[in-house]
Amino acid sequence: MNSERYRARGVSPQKEDVHAALRDADRGLFPQAFCKLMPDVLGRDAGQVLAMHADGAGTKAALAYVAWREWGDAAVFRGIAQDALVMNIDDLLCVGATGPFLLSNTIGRNARLVPGEVLGALLAGYDDACAAYAGWGLAVHATGGETADVGDLVRTLIVDATVTTRLPRDAVVSNADVKPGDVIIGLASDGQAAWEREPNSGIGSNGLTSARHDLLHADYARRYPESCEPELPAHLRYCGPYHLHDPLPGSTLSVGRALLSPTRSYAPLLKPLLDGRRGLISALVHCTGGGQTKCRHAGRGVHYVKDSPFPPPALFHAIREVTGTPWAELYQVFNMGHRMEVIGDAALLPALEELGREHHIAVRQVGHCEANTDPARNRVTITAPDGELVTYE
Amino acid sequence: MNSERYRARGVSPQKEDVHAALRDADRGLFPQAFCKLMPDVLGRDAGQVLAMHADGAGTKAALAYVAWREWGDAAVFRGIAQDALVMNIDDLLCVGATGPFLLSNTIGRNARLVPGEVLGALLAGYDDACAAYAGWGLAVHATGGETADVGDLVRTLIVDATVTTRLPRDAVVSNADVKPGDVIIGLASDGQAAWEREPNSGIGSNGLTSARHDLLHADYARRYPESCEPELPAHLRYCGPYHLHDPLPGSTLSVGRALLSPTRSYAPLLKPLLDGRRGLISALVHCTGGGQTKCRHAGRGVHYVKDSPFPPPALFHAIREVTGTPWAELYQVFNMGHRMEVIGDAALLPALEELGREHHIAVRQVGHCEANTDPARNRVTITAPDGELVTYE
Repeated sequence: MNSERYRARGVSPQKEDVHAALRDADRGLFPQAFCKLMPDVLGRDAGQVLAMHADGAGTKAALAYVAWREWGDAAVFRGIAQDALVMNIDDLLCVGATGPFLLSNTIGRNARLVPGEVLGALLAGYDDACAAYAGWGLAVHATGGETADVGDLVRTLIVDATVTTRLPRDAVVSNADVKPGDVIIGLASDGQAAWEREPNSGIGSNGLTSARHDLLHADYARRYPESCEPELPAHLRYCGPYHLHDPLPGSTLSVGRALLSPTRSYAPLLKPLLDGRRGLISALVHCTGGGQTKCRHAGRGVHYVKDSPFPPPALFHAIREVTGTPWAELYQVFNMGHRMEVIGDAALLPALEELGREHHIAVRQVGHCEANTDPARNRVTITAPDGELVTYE
Repeated sequence: MNSERYRARGVSPQKEDVHAALRDADRGLFPQAFCKLMPDVLGRDAGQVLAMHADGAGTKAALAYVAWREWGDAAVFRGIAQDALVMNIDDLLCVGATGPFLLSNTIGRNARLVPGEVLGALLAGYDDACAAYAGWGLAVHATGGETADVGDLVRTLIVDATVTTRLPRDAVVSNADVKPGDVIIGLASDGQAAWEREPNSGIGSNGLTSARHDLLHADYARRYPESCEPELPAHLRYCGPYHLHDPLPGSTLSVGRALLSPTRSYAPLLKPLLDGRRGLISALVHCTGGGQTKCRHAGRGVHYVKDSPFPPPALFHAIREVTGTPWAELYQVFNMGHRMEVIGDAALLPALEELGREHHIAVRQVGHCEANTDPARNRVTITAPDGELVTYE
C-alpha cells in the first residue's frame, strides 16, 4: 500500500498510531460490536445499553468550500451535514440501534473565510437529515452544539457530529457470531435511491483526501490554497485532470457533484430488517474507513469470500484510471460499490431484495463466509473486476 | 470593541453570525438554563431531563503544539484534554447536573505533524480528568470517540469533547429567577487549588487566540507557521514581547506555563453546594466566552452590579500592559479573576467561603443584583481596578 502518499497528505492510512494509543481502551460490553456499548449508567436499567458515537464529514468539507466558492451556492453544505449525521447513525444501526437518537454538532471554522450563510446551510442540512430519518421511523433529536472560531487551527471548516442512543440489551447486534455458510449481502452505494434528488456516486465520506487531490486540477490549489495543506508537494496536491464541472466518465454527474454526493443512509432497509428479522443477522458492517476490509473485525476464524462484489461505480473507476492505484489499495480506502454489508442467514437475501426494490437501492449477495484456516484470525478475499484475487489478513 | 482585530484573526468576537444562524433553534425545556435541556427521550421518564453538550480546548491546542515542540514533552497535551472536559462538565454543573456523565472525544489532526505520542497524552489527560471528577463524586464515563486525519482541514490539531447527562427535572438550576438582593459570588480562577500541582494563571480556555498572539514573540511565527493562520498580518501574529520561558511579571509562572494553565474545575465547590443548598441558588454562570458579561443571559430586568471583583490575575494584567486593551473589552473576552459565578441568597456566601478554604480557592462576594430600570432587559456594571465603571446592556 502506498502509505507514504497518504502520510505526506497528513493522513495515516491505517491509523496505526491511533490504534496504538487506544490499545488499552475499554471496548465495552460487546467488544466486537460495531460501536462501543456501555451499561445504562444514565437510566440504570440492566436491560438497556448506551452508545455515544462521534464521526464527521472529514475533508469533504474542504471540497464543499471550493464548490461553494466556485458555484456561489452555500446549499452544498447541506450535504456535508448529512454526511456527518449519516456517518454516525448508520454506524449505530450496525449495533441494532434504531433510536431515539440525540444529536450534537460541532463546527470549527475560520470566521474570516466561513460566514454565517455557511453555518445556516449546515444547520438546515441537519434539519433536513433529521426529517428524513423521522420519515423512516428513526427519531433524531437535535440538542444544539458548538461553533468555535478557531482560524489558527482550522484552514476553512471542520464539521463533526456526536450521537447518543440507548437500546435494549437483547436487541444488540454484537458482530461476534459470524458462521461459515453465512451470506454477505451488499447494499449499493451508488444509483439513485427513491428519496434522492440526483444519482449518488457512492463515495460516502471516506477517501475524500485521496479522491479530491487525485481527480481535481491544480487550478484549485492556486485558487483556493486554504482548501489544502500548503506544504503538500505539487505532485500530491490537486494533481488530477478534472475541473468540478467536467462530466464524470460513465456517469450523468459532473466530477464535482459526484465527489460531493451526500452519504446515503441505509435506514430505510435496515430499520425494517432490525424490526422483523434481527435474529437472522450475524453482523452489520458499515464499510467506511477500511472499505471492504472492515468486516475483518466481525467474528473469529472467518474467511470472508467476496467473489461477486458490485462492479465499481464510475467515480472509483475514474480514480483507478487516473492514478493506477492497485485493487488491493482501492478496496481498502473506498467502499467500491456497497457501503453497507449484512452478514447472516440466506433468508435475509429475499427480504433485502424486496426492500431494495421498494427503495431503489441495488441489493446483491456479494459473497459468503467460510471457516478460515487459522481459527484465531479472519481473512478477506475479494475478486476484483478483472479476476484478480485480493487478500487481506 | 476592537472587533476588526478579532475578525482579522479568524474569530468573530461576539459570534453574531452564529447567533443569527441559530436564531430559530429550539432553546429546550428551560430556555434560560446555561445548557439546553430536553425531555428524557432515551429513558422516557417525565421526571428526568437530558442534556448533551459540546465544547473544546479551542486554539489553546495550537499553543500546546508550540510548547511541545519547544520543550519536547507531550505531557503538555494532558492539560488540553482537561481543558476540553472541564469546559463541558462545568457548563453542565451550571444547570445542576452532577452526573453520571458520558464523554465522547473528537480529535482532528494533521497526521504529518501530530503523532501517536500526542494522542496518547490527550487520552491520558482525559483519564486523569475523569479520575479527578470521580474523586469529587462525579462519575464521568469515557465512551470512546473519533480521531480523524484531516491535514487538509486542520493545521495541527483540534480537540473537542461532547458530554451527555441526565438529571431530575426538579434539580434543574434554570437561571430564570434572579432577584434583586441576590448576591453575586465569584470563585477565583487563579491561585493554587488543593489538587493543583502548580499555580493556575486563571485563563481557562477562552481568549487564547488573543492572549497567545498579543503576548508571544514573532519568533514563534517563524518557527511554527503551522500554529497560526499564515495569512494573518504580521502586526496581529505573535506580536508580543515574550518567549514561553520568560517569567510572567507578578507571577511565579513562566508566560508559557501561565498561558497553558489547565482549566480548573469548580466541581469540588459546586457538587456539595448543589447537594445541600440548591434551593438558595438563583443562577450559576460559567464565565467563559463573553467573560464577565455572560450573566446577562440569566434572569430578566436585572442589573448585575459587580462593584467588588477580584483584582485581575497577573496574566490579564500582562495582556493589558502589552496591548493597552480597554477594561470594557478585557472583561468581555477574559474572566479577569473568577470563572464561576454563584448568584442567589446571601446565605450561600459563608457556605462557599468554607468550601473555598477547604479546597484553597478564593471566594468572594463580587457584587449584587438590583432591579434594572428597563424591566425587560439585563445590564451589567463592573467596577474596574482603577475605578472606571464599565457597563454592558
